Amino acid sequence: MKSQVIIDISYLKIMGTGHGFTSSSIRFNLSEEDGKNLHEVWPGGSRILVDLIPGEGDEASGAAFYVKRDGNPRISSVEFENFCIDGLHFCEDGSGNPNPENTYTNGKTGIYVDTANDSFRINGMGLVYLEHGVTVYHADALSIHDNFIAECGSCIELRGWGQASKVTDNLLGAGYKGYTIFAQNFGGLLIASNNVFPRGMSSVHFDGVARSSITGNRFHSFYPGMLVFERNCSENLISSNHFYRSCEPWAPLKNYGNGLDDQFGLIFIRGNDNSVIANHFSEIVDIENLRPTGVRPVIIHLVSGHGNYIAVNHIVAGTEAAQPENAESCFSTQVEAMLSTERSETIAFVAVQVEGEAVNNTILDSGTDAQVMVDKKTNIFRALPEPEM
Amino acid sequence: MKSQVIIDISYLKIMGTGHGFTSSSIRFNLSEEDGKNLHEVWPGGSRILVDLIPGEGDEASGAAFYVKRDGNPRISSVEFENFCIDGLHFCEDGSGNPNPENTYTNGKTGIYVDTANDSFRINGMGLVYLEHGVTVYHADALSIHDNFIAECGSCIELRGWGQASKVTDNLLGAGYKGYTIFAQNFGGLLIASNNVFPRGMSSVHFDGVARSSITGNRFHSFYPGMLVFERNCSENLISSNHFYRSCEPWAPLKNYGNGLDDQFGLIFIRGNDNSVIANHFSEIVDIENLRPTGVRPVIIHLVSGHGNYIAVNHIVAGTEAAQPENAESCFSTQVEAMLSTERSETIAFVAVQVEGEAVNNTILDSGTDAQVMVDKKTNIFRALPEPEM
Amino acid sequence: MKSQVIIDISYLKIMGTGHGFTSSSIRFNLSEEDGKNLHEVWPGGSRILVDLIPGEGDEASGAAFYVKRDGNPRISSVEFENFCIDGLHFCEDGSGNPNPENTYTNGKTGIYVDTANDSFRINGMGLVYLEHGVTVYHADALSIHDNFIAECGSCIELRGWGQASKVTDNLLGAGYKGYTIFAQNFGGLLIASNNVFPRGMSSVHFDGVARSSITGNRFHSFYPGMLVFERNCSENLISSNHFYRSCEPWAPLKNYGNGLDDQFGLIFIRGNDNSVIANHFSEIVDIENLRPTGVRPVIIHLVSGHGNYIAVNHIVAGTEAAQPENAESCFSTQVEAMLSTERSETIAFVAVQVEGEAVNNTILDSGTDAQVMVDKKTNIFRALPEPEM
Repeated sequence: MKSQVIIDISYLKIMGTGHGFTSSSIRFNLSEEDGKNLHEVWPGGSRILVDLIPGEGDEASGAAFYVKRDGNPRISSVEFENFCIDGLHFCEDGSGNPNPENTYTNGKTGIYVDTANDSFRINGMGLVYLEHGVTVYHADALSIHDNFIAECGSCIELRGWGQASKVTDNLLGAGYKGYTIFAQNFGGLLIASNNVFPRGMSSVHFDGVARSSITGNRFHSFYPGMLVFERNCSENLISSNHFYRSCEPWAPLKNYGNGLDDQFGLIFIRGNDNSVIANHFSEIVDIENLRPTGVRPVIIHLVSGHGNYIAVNHIVAGTEAAQPENAESCFSTQVEAMLSTERSETIAFVAVQVEGEAVNNTILDSGTDAQVMVDKKTNIFRALPEPEM
Repeated sequence: MKSQVIIDISYLKIMGTGHGFTSSSIRFNLSEEDGKNLHEVWPGGSRILVDLIPGEGDEASGAAFYVKRDGNPRISSVEFENFCIDGLHFCEDGSGNPNPENTYTNGKTGIYVDTANDSFRINGMGLVYLEHGVTVYHADALSIHDNFIAECGSCIELRGWGQASKVTDNLLGAGYKGYTIFAQNFGGLLIASNNVFPRGMSSVHFDGVARSSITGNRFHSFYPGMLVFERNCSENLISSNHFYRSCEPWAPLKNYGNGLDDQFGLIFIRGNDNSVIANHFSEIVDIENLRPTGVRPVIIHLVSGHGNYIAVNHIVAGTEAAQPENAESCFSTQVEAMLSTERSETIAFVAVQVEGEAVNNTILDSGTDAQVMVDKKTNIFRALPEPEM
Repeated sequence: MKSQVIIDISYLKIMGTGHGFTSSSIRFNLSEEDGKNLHEVWPGGSRILVDLIPGEGDEASGAAFYVKRDGNPRISSVEFENFCIDGLHFCEDGSGNPNPENTYTNGKTGIYVDTANDSFRINGMGLVYLEHGVTVYHADALSIHDNFIAECGSCIELRGWGQASKVTDNLLGAGYKGYTIFAQNFGGLLIASNNVFPRGMSSVHFDGVARSSITGNRFHSFYPGMLVFERNCSENLISSNHFYRSCEPWAPLKNYGNGLDDQFGLIFIRGNDNSVIANHFSEIVDIENLRPTGVRPVIIHLVSGHGNYIAVNHIVAGTEAAQPENAESCFSTQVEAMLSTERSETIAFVAVQVEGEAVNNTILDSGTDAQVMVDKKTNIFRALPEPEM
């Protein structure tokens, strides 16, 4: 498409015949030789090729689908289903990235909803190579379900404020610069059963979010800061999630990261009365890759707030096992890294770090006495039992 | 539709091109001025306008879709997908409700399945302004998935008996008189990843249900009695759910409720061997709104039964923060209420109340000694640790 | 179909108008009298009748849909949606089964993916009476979501190796010989919100699987060995699942089983650093049905490995209540068995059995001192508190 589709009516459904996701990232990092023998490039079918030229500093102008309507009722029941929005290429971003296709920057957005909305659905879509996948302001009863949104700068951004929505059962993975799932001033958001893979700057980032749930997700990241709660996020539930942090195994992207060090925490919390219960954490990183050098990596970092409840989380930390020699194929490299648990050696870690500003929190059965950094005078702590001598 | 659709054959799929949900509740409570400027009313597309006249005392006669077939095999594989069933209006109910559109009463049902059935699917539907959304007798392997069923008297009722079904990933919200999810004599029901909003009389109501799961849901209610287990519900799992109870913030419905007081419990259990593990509870209510006056609200109320296991639940109780002056818009009012956690002040509460009839239950790490009312001679109790002095 | 559909192109969607699942198992076990009066047999619509003759020892030849393509990129974005693949009949298997329709053997497969693949989707399908439902080698970002795959020898087999996929929100149930969900050398698999019913040899079987999640599922089985981790499965999360094991109540299949005895464990683990948190177990079996005679059935069996974390699991064990006289109808028999909790009597059981090879594991709040068999010198154990005297 050379121009934007503008939607200003309710009860509209835009539907394709296939989500059409294919990895552009793998394609654009193939050797010249391999690149010549590809079966298909820009395949047809229900694939929107986004060939817009976004206006400078005008994010909305780069949106393939732009939704806006004021007045009553709020625009309702717009559905996007089962087609592909493909941003085609990333561009130079001034960072000196030798391959512009790895910048995650092109000013394009797949779906941009600008005004308060109700009961939208985004289902079975494929979004790829967009700087922003889905951006929705002022959502109510939004459902983003069973999509494949990956190799985008950011995948899902719920901005402004909103309530009572769900982001469920998606395959997601942002670029190293962006958000995988971002929500702002949101109440009652359910983030469940998603499989979130690298390399997002974060897996979930909440800014002023309350009374929301992050349950039953599988998160994999190459950096610290997988889950970030900033600016007073309160009364949220983080339960039954699998957090796996490893190091970038793929040659073309080894030089990139989100800039956070290992003291930041795999999860970082500012806020009150949150629950972190029954999660699994695997921090898998070689000691020489820890930053700053010699640090014990922090898993749960409680920076400020009271009344948080952190219980029965299981934390594993170990070295990466030896990498395969030939790390050219992204797929086999990642699988190999993921399965090589046997050669891993335990490393020291901080299970929970509670800063001085944080008081009246409860930490139970999530680390030994040596693994939990907390002022026991101002917080409640029960250590994991230690072996009998 | 002026007359009912009767279905008596298997392998039928009824499919639309959009779930079409829009809030009638908001529309019918607009000022006259605002009501004049609406963009659309009764929009077209795949919307069934249910204009039946239900027979007195004949619930089935008010069903838009009525399914009945006896004999073998049970009627199978009927699918409803992606259209809207709209009951249009509620009626006078004799309660003196000044706006009949707020009574949740009109004798209409969206889908009514009267005989034993197998492998039905209800997906991507929108149901609104029906006294009963979906009523299914004798379900086996039923899937109710990814629908928007709200502003109905009751949303989902699984009656008679049934087994091995799922209610997953829906947006749901009943009226103050009805059930959001109701199940009777059911085994093996999975209720997962739903986002259930007010104002149902309850969020989940089980009557004689066994070996079922309520996991990973987000529940929001304006009254006590969010989850009710009556008549021996046993061996059920309630895990990783977020329960948020606040008070009605929207002017047109402030006078309605489910009649239960704050001693009833946010969850109310009669039955044996249930598991309540790793849930978050937020009870947010101003002290002057508690009933009876001066009571400490009860969160988990174990009324009768043995062998129940209640562990690592996190309970938060506080005051509502100040309401916005202008509470006319339902959306902004609710979002404001949901996000205003910072000004909240802690209130006293009963974390778990175990009645004398209930013995041999186990309560761990879900409340302090002062917050749990239990006979420690007949039940097992480990209090949350308290701060060191 | 008399011949196979071969797929060797990407971006293909094969779509029907109904999942069409109906129980063949019930039909083929009706009395002759009842069999005469059936409403329909082999109903039409979007139903593929698989009438292939598989080649001896050539599994792929029995596949209704066979997918294979080498080279770059991997074959991507093939979707199967909302139709039925029906294997028609099972055959003699040499076991002397009096009814060949109960052998779960016919050499047929529904969907067979033979080469490395990316972003496939299988949604809303019905698969029945196939020896193998879905077999996928070398999957990446596969989604198997919201299907009904039952009365198949095995339902879902992820073979070879793979990563970052999801099996979510399905209704599943294999035969007594096969796997319900099987995965091999897989990393980052999310198995969530499935309702898995009998009679699979196992509900989930992992062979060398790491960093994967099994969360929020409802599992029902008629045999021990519901969840099996073989050959070093590590850093997996098993959380918020409901495990219900009962005994076969339906006459035609009472003589079949998976051959495992009650010492095997409902869950059987070889591997390191796994998490088993916040699950419910109901082991419901009459004492005379336990094998070997007089044994206490084992619930969680930790056979080898270190660093496993088993916490806040609730285990219930009791007798089956009396069976109804007339056990001819599969549906009513199962519902009756499932709901009859009131007459059940407690039986002795082993909550967790930790073998001598397994060291440095942690077991918390999942059984009393008498119920957990563990060497406390080499593992960490906190018993459930016992009643005060």
